[in-house]
Amino acid sequence: MSAPLRVAMIGHGFMGAAHSVGWRQAPAAFTLPAQPVMSTLVGRNAEAAGEAAARWGWQEAASDWREVIERDDIDIVDIVTPGDSHAEIAVAALAAGKHVLCEKPLANSVAEAQLMADAATRAAASGIRSMVGFTYRRVPAATLMRDMIAEGRIGSIRQVRASYRQDWLADADTPMTWRLDKDRAGSGALGDIGAHAIDMCQFVTGQSLRSVSGIVETLVEERPLLGESVGLGGTAGDGRGRVTVDDVALFSARLDSGALASFEATRFATGRKNALEIEVSGERGALHWNLEDMNALNFYDATKDAGEQGFTRILVTEPQHPYLSGWWPAGHMLGYEHGFSHQVKDFVEAIAAGAQPTPSFDDGLHVQRVLDAVERSAADRSAWTEV
Amino acid sequence: MSAPLRVAMIGHGFMGAAHSVGWRQAPAAFTLPAQPVMSTLVGRNAEAAGEAAARWGWQEAASDWREVIERDDIDIVDIVTPGDSHAEIAVAALAAGKHVLCEKPLANSVAEAQLMADAATRAAASGIRSMVGFTYRRVPAATLMRDMIAEGRIGSIRQVRASYRQDWLADADTPMTWRLDKDRAGSGALGDIGAHAIDMCQFVTGQSLRSVSGIVETLVEERPLLGESVGLGGTAGDGRGRVTVDDVALFSARLDSGALASFEATRFATGRKNALEIEVSGERGALHWNLEDMNALNFYDATKDAGEQGFTRILVTEPQHPYLSGWWPAGHMLGYEHGFSHQVKDFVEAIAAGAQPTPSFDDGLHVQRVLDAVERSAADRSAWTEV
Amino acid sequence: MSAPLRVAMIGHGFMGAAHSVGWRQAPAAFTLPAQPVMSTLVGRNAEAAGEAAARWGWQEAASDWREVIERDDIDIVDIVTPGDSHAEIAVAALAAGKHVLCEKPLANSVAEAQLMADAATRAAASGIRSMVGFTYRRVPAATLMRDMIAEGRIGSIRQVRASYRQDWLADADTPMTWRLDKDRAGSGALGDIGAHAIDMCQFVTGQSLRSVSGIVETLVEERPLLGESVGLGGTAGDGRGRVTVDDVALFSARLDSGALASFEATRFATGRKNALEIEVSGERGALHWNLEDMNALNFYDATKDAGEQGFTRILVTEPQHPYLSGWWPAGHMLGYEHGFSHQVKDFVEAIAAGAQPTPSFDDGLHVQRVLDAVERSAADRSAWTEV
Amino acid sequence: MSAPLRVAMIGHGFMGAAHSVGWRQAPAAFTLPAQPVMSTLVGRNAEAAGEAAARWGWQEAASDWREVIERDDIDIVDIVTPGDSHAEIAVAALAAGKHVLCEKPLANSVAEAQLMADAATRAAASGIRSMVGFTYRRVPAATLMRDMIAEGRIGSIRQVRASYRQDWLADADTPMTWRLDKDRAGSGALGDIGAHAIDMCQFVTGQSLRSVSGIVETLVEERPLLGESVGLGGTAGDGRGRVTVDDVALFSARLDSGALASFEATRFATGRKNALEIEVSGERGALHWNLEDMNALNFYDATKDAGEQGFTRILVTEPQHPYLSGWWPAGHMLGYEHGFSHQVKDFVEAIAAGAQPTPSFDDGLHVQRVLDAVERSAADRSAWTEV
Repeated sequence: MSAPLRVAMIGHGFMGAAHSVGWRQAPAAFTLPAQPVMSTLVGRNAEAAGEAAARWGWQEAASDWREVIERDDIDIVDIVTPGDSHAEIAVAALAAGKHVLCEKPLANSVAEAQLMADAATRAAASGIRSMVGFTYRRVPAATLMRDMIAEGRIGSIRQVRASYRQDWLADADTPMTWRLDKDRAGSGALGDIGAHAIDMCQFVTGQSLRSVSGIVETLVEERPLLGESVGLGGTAGDGRGRVTVDDVALFSARLDSGALASFEATRFATGRKNALEIEVSGERGALHWNLEDMNALNFYDATKDAGEQGFTRILVTEPQHPYLSGWWPAGHMLGYEHGFSHQVKDFVEAIAAGAQPTPSFDDGLHVQRVLDAVERSAADRSAWTEV
Repeated sequence: MSAPLRVAMIGHGFMGAAHSVGWRQAPAAFTLPAQPVMSTLVGRNAEAAGEAAARWGWQEAASDWREVIERDDIDIVDIVTPGDSHAEIAVAALAAGKHVLCEKPLANSVAEAQLMADAATRAAASGIRSMVGFTYRRVPAATLMRDMIAEGRIGSIRQVRASYRQDWLADADTPMTWRLDKDRAGSGALGDIGAHAIDMCQFVTGQSLRSVSGIVETLVEERPLLGESVGLGGTAGDGRGRVTVDDVALFSARLDSGALASFEATRFATGRKNALEIEVSGERGALHWNLEDMNALNFYDATKDAGEQGFTRILVTEPQHPYLSGWWPAGHMLGYEHGFSHQVKDFVEAIAAGAQPTPSFDDGLHVQRVLDAVERSAADRSAWTEV
Repeated sequence: MSAPLRVAMIGHGFMGAAHSVGWRQAPAAFTLPAQPVMSTLVGRNAEAAGEAAARWGWQEAASDWREVIERDDIDIVDIVTPGDSHAEIAVAALAAGKHVLCEKPLANSVAEAQLMADAATRAAASGIRSMVGFTYRRVPAATLMRDMIAEGRIGSIRQVRASYRQDWLADADTPMTWRLDKDRAGSGALGDIGAHAIDMCQFVTGQSLRSVSGIVETLVEERPLLGESVGLGGTAGDGRGRVTVDDVALFSARLDSGALASFEATRFATGRKNALEIEVSGERGALHWNLEDMNALNFYDATKDAGEQGFTRILVTEPQHPYLSGWWPAGHMLGYEHGFSHQVKDFVEAIAAGAQPTPSFDDGLHVQRVLDAVERSAADRSAWTEV
Repeated sequence: MSAPLRVAMIGHGFMGAAHSVGWRQAPAAFTLPAQPVMSTLVGRNAEAAGEAAARWGWQEAASDWREVIERDDIDIVDIVTPGDSHAEIAVAALAAGKHVLCEKPLANSVAEAQLMADAATRAAASGIRSMVGFTYRRVPAATLMRDMIAEGRIGSIRQVRASYRQDWLADADTPMTWRLDKDRAGSGALGDIGAHAIDMCQFVTGQSLRSVSGIVETLVEERPLLGESVGLGGTAGDGRGRVTVDDVALFSARLDSGALASFEATRFATGRKNALEIEVSGERGALHWNLEDMNALNFYDATKDAGEQGFTRILVTEPQHPYLSGWWPAGHMLGYEHGFSHQVKDFVEAIAAGAQPTPSFDDGLHVQRVLDAVERSAADRSAWTEV
């Protein structure tokens, strides 16, 4: 029906598995204008890359990303490596004329992110597309939240309350991983999960964070070195290492409209596993969503009869809800990885339509600037700081 | 790594899509002892079958199931047609020496189910495996519930409360579909979703229903004929048809141990979309699960200090939980279709191990007998009736 | 401002404490048309009655109820004794020209309840009022549920799901109390809490139960005798006694309109403390309420845009909600005993207005007949039985 | 049984009603070491005071508080006036040798609060007791939270998340009341409800806030003048007035142990009616409580088997829970005003025991200092500020 889009994915950790599901499932769930082909998985360790490719359905594995991005038979480069390599790969891939999907955060610093955004702008001039992977935007309930705010269902925005809380570091004996090393990860809770909260706020409100006041802190400064990697963590090995990223970040922000927003990102919220939560309070209503109850959106309609007001728990599984046409009958739940299929759908559709996909590298750069502003504020006694 | 198992799937409606995800995802998520190969999708309409095969990743389509089940290069037959054809296909496939996975309910009548169970017993003697597709057993929270009861975490069982509530018929203008035609579907809410509640009760308690007292009822007896099919329902066409199945079933049952259980199956529970819910009350605790909150299991431990007792909402996404090793980090949700991957995993492992997979056709037959007993009780003023 | 209504309360157990709060608080919370005066508390044990009277704010105690109900300075007799004495006291009090508030269930048998209803009818001819104490009707969320159904907010009723689940007998070592003795209590879970579920169903739907099919069962037939009484239970003493009432009752019922309703009453639902729960499914919506979350009413409006439907959790604490004008600002919760103040308010207002308060003794008699029909059905293999 | 304690209450608004319930109910619910007598209600408007006294059960009304506090037959002065008069009345009452219960916040400024705390210290030397009315400490679930933290159930504290969210100002047409006038109220959301969040944090953790970084803001700066007062708000009258207090306050704080805490106080959280919410994350577990679900405490025990961890919803209605011995059987809910009975119980017991009740005026002064530090930080670009 349409030209294939041959994809090379660079990296194959946890994010590689999730992206692979997206590439594999999107064409089955949706009728796409172009057919993605899972061509090449790239990993430095050839054996590990080969195994991952076989398991996840890639046609082949390769070990040199520079070689792969130059190949004529590759159309899309999907970057799922740690943040310290994003800039180099993305800039090169764009220069080679490949569409680029880059996992978030865009980069580990504003400078790198700026390079990438500039490269994306240049590439866009010749029809090359780029997108940063804030997939939580594509959980149907989050997308519906954005739509309802845009349609004015809660009126003008009074305030926002956003947080992303996990607890996988609450145990002081949880070992080091690359996510706790500033050189690899760029930042800790702030950049890893706080970035999601920032992007979600900007996505659903349609507004940008303009200034911030915040604090970042490392609660446990030394941890056992990693033995074997398991999930996001792993078992303890010999020796101890220094945690060089933040464990928790608290900040307030002012949006374009002047409205205040509060943010919390933490890996020490005992009992909270993956609680990206956002509540937007408006003049005419409110919307609340929590990733731990991801298929539901809570809507308070302040224009109804006072005696019948309350939060309505909308189960976002109806055919008219965003992305749901591709899936199951009403009441059948979606899971974590569906966002990756939706991301593939939107990316492929934008490429086919010659349109800019969102979130763009510019959007990713702005998130990076917010992270930077939070760190600058934290270094200045939490004084308000422009983004 | 291991011999491939070539699969033919007969049928390609909503259940075909779900089974296809299972076959496609299971090998990526889990390390299987044998590799399933999505060989042939079979559908009477060659064009529709071809499109479905292409979309869902089957190597080819075919239109004559009789021919396909005789092929030497097919190892597994997966039946996802409406219930009226299950017996014929399954018996023939078993006779042809194919392992058979058959969607639930096993058949539309006890007589047919008996034929199938007999065929399965005969086939098992020569190492041919068969299994009926009660996939909700394989939602990790439901599996964990079974495990915890088996381990004695709630002590001996006092009573069970099970229900499956949907609302897609609450609107009297929802049109006819094959699910409302007794000839095709066998029964209505009772056989379609009540069967799930019965199986779930038997699965988690490890006990069988021995006698029942119940009522079945059709609330809306005439509906518009179906125009175009959408999801489980569709748009209204011209003319009206007669609903020949039940809309709601209420029954009580006695389990092996003598404990009482209550059941409700309904398609008229306005606002309940897919609420398969079960609560088991024991001497030492209780467990509660609801498919609409499918990743959580609620556990009440009556052996704790009285001042600290309460229902604990266990988020069943930890690596040590059933099936979770194949998926995402803690706190990342699974959805409806993951049960189909788990079903493939268990079926393939049983085949490779030369073991009987569960639920067996005998298990499916027992559910069919319970459904029959409920209908007989309903015809006898709800008097208690042996299964 | 208005004539006082002098009250004598017969009995002073747990229900006496709750009724006392009602008499004490209602005049402070509401502007009543007549002022209730807490005159006399009656108990067989003079010392205990004296202590209770002093503690709960009654002007005096007395030990002979026959004497008290004949006194000219008593206007209202409030009966909070166990059910076996209700008939004798109520009939005598009505004959003596006193308004009577009688705790539920009205009596321990249909015959006694019939005597009481007849006495109430005779008394009503001379302006003497009587009422049975199903106070849960007067939890604002339950009253609102009734109002919304009456206003057609959920359209015609499709089905009802009602249950009252507790767990105070789940421990087989919980000792005997008068509530487990058929001579004193009349029946067990069925009459004690099942009666509330029946009344609630009839109250909110405005329909009566016409026929039933059910089972009642005693799960633990022998228990330690009571040592010291604590709350609804107590500590174990020496020796063992025979439980002569049911522990659990399961039944289905048909309402006036033909709609089906399911009921469960149990004292063995481990972890459920006081879970009177009712859901009414209608053509245009549904309403759900649970006494364990007593200030909230869940409303599903099936007439809204499909994409915005869901259960709305109405916090029933707004000034326009039933009874709320007498209490606190929005968002400030009411508790268990507020229903008793509302009962006093409604009873006093009906007396002052010369109107029949509800629920009447006839209403109480009908509940008694339903209980009786359930027991007859249970004795007849659960066959459907007319009320 | 014991000497009476004669009480005079100064003021009779919403808080007067709540305190009156406390004085009336505490002696019925609990066995107190001294009997409070509701002697005199004081209000400037003699008629209104007379009506309130009659309604709420006070023996008499008076209009001159100075006269009343000098009376020999008054033992306790209970202050429920707006904050601007607290200092004058309390200091005078203490000087007159009366025990003083003062509604929160202690005063409208640190200077006033300091005067009061000094007066309390002087009075304590001669056995005169004083206490500030942070009644939410005495909601049983909150008290249990404090107890469990003190017992080490969650280990050392990692972080705290506290908020108090209401929405009664979300509508820009809600009229002015004294609570929006800085001269009367001292501050807005910060002092009214933020003070509760601060006290709750200090109460449950046993730690003080040592430094803060925050912002306060008025979202709607002009409102209609008040016509008639209704609940916390009222109807709009003629003309418009200037809101001189904050509508929302966001701040972070550092506790004694160095742990970080985040705070939000707002009257613009559309749909949140009275949501005082606190979560304390510890090394070994977490506790979460929300006043809108006031009878439940959520406890996460991180020391349990990983596969069984989750938040346990403890229904705090068991006889062994704080204050519950005085009330109803398990599963029967308490409401907003029960905290006032518990406050009376604790105050009377402390007086009888010759002990310092808590929270003391010093505790109230510390809260006042925190409020002041937040305002100073807000005036200094949210820079961290010592309390």
